[in-house]
Amino acid sequence: MNSKIPAPVAKRLALYHRCVITLLESGKELVSSNELGERLSLKSSQIRKDLSYFGGFGKRGSGYNLNYLKESLENILGINRPWNVGIVGAGNIGMALANYEGLLRDNYRVIALFDRNLSKWGTSVGSRRIPIIPIKEMCSKIEELSIEIGVIAVPAEYAQSIANRLMECKKIKGIINFAPVKIYVKNVDLEDVDISISFKALTFKIWSESLGKE
Amino acid sequence: MNSKIPAPVAKRLALYHRCVITLLESGKELVSSNELGERLSLKSSQIRKDLSYFGGFGKRGSGYNLNYLKESLENILGINRPWNVGIVGAGNIGMALANYEGLLRDNYRVIALFDRNLSKWGTSVGSRRIPIIPIKEMCSKIEELSIEIGVIAVPAEYAQSIANRLMECKKIKGIINFAPVKIYVKNVDLEDVDISISFKALTFKIWSESLGKE
Repeated sequence: MNSKIPAPVAKRLALYHRCVITLLESGKELVSSNELGERLSLKSSQIRKDLSYFGGFGKRGSGYNLNYLKESLENILGINRPWNVGIVGAGNIGMALANYEGLLRDNYRVIALFDRNLSKWGTSVGSRRIPIIPIKEMCSKIEELSIEIGVIAVPAEYAQSIANRLMECKKIKGIINFAPVKIYVKNVDLEDVDISISFKALTFKIWSESLGKE
Repeated sequence: MNSKIPAPVAKRLALYHRCVITLLESGKELVSSNELGERLSLKSSQIRKDLSYFGGFGKRGSGYNLNYLKESLENILGINRPWNVGIVGAGNIGMALANYEGLLRDNYRVIALFDRNLSKWGTSVGSRRIPIIPIKEMCSKIEELSIEIGVIAVPAEYAQSIANRLMECKKIKGIINFAPVKIYVKNVDLEDVDISISFKALTFKIWSESLGKE
């Protein structure tokens, strides 16, 4: 049913999901597309269109039921079940991800870090004591631990070779790339994370407002 | 001129900019909206519409001149000049950002880290030797170093109080929040970075493809 959904819609669905959780935590039960639009700086017509891909969630006039919307979005996004995640590279980005509070809340369980630095092997990270495992054991551990998502958190120059090795591990279904370089994959899904995008979106706002004031 | 541009357009402009740089590095001089669309999983009509906000960049049929497009996008995004950045929190995320290769390339210069942990004070980070400064000196250092962008890289429970303190520092024009919690700001611009969004976009793809195969 979802195979025709374009990638930007998926990102917006993830934004809706985050916003719905915030609203539920604040004690609300219903939300209108207008309110979602204001909170997310999107047109309400866009939101209604996105949600209509998956059938109607709300009755006209009364808004969307937040609990139902949350459950539906989790079904659509595939986070109604846990995903096991392995991180390649136990540097700053890898460590930050292993300790990131938001991931576990969304059913992403980081259960292994892989590193080539032997002084890190056998140690563990964070309160959940995630083990750091030699990178040469990566594929066998990925199989053993049923890891489906591999995260690339190594310097740019090693990113493609790590991607190639991850693609050879049978259980891997998707790769998230944090290295600031374009990588190519086959037969697995890929998401690139470009941290500088949010910096550019911010300076665009600052800059365009300063022009408006002139 | 830009003050009516919606936020999602700004994000897409940043994506175009990244793609344009990749294409220039590969030796290309022109690009069509179709090719940009394919590379970014966006409709070419969307791309033409976004770029038309800022006047025409290309001649019909011949595609966009990449050098001109790069320069124009940099003017629009406000990265035709450097921005000084200060990071609050010298934990894993703060350290990862200070060392992130992609930021400096885009004219974002991390020049200070602020931390409350006195054992970190006086040390420095990375090859550019970015100093770690006591958080109580934050506002005076922000003024002295002309820092306009503050990055929140502290645990969720401290994010709002750090935001409040940043808003009191005169030079700060914008805040980027990496803590997985909603924060509120006044008189400065804000970008929230939610790392789990990219995980959700990935599992959405994996999940919807698995449904297609059933």
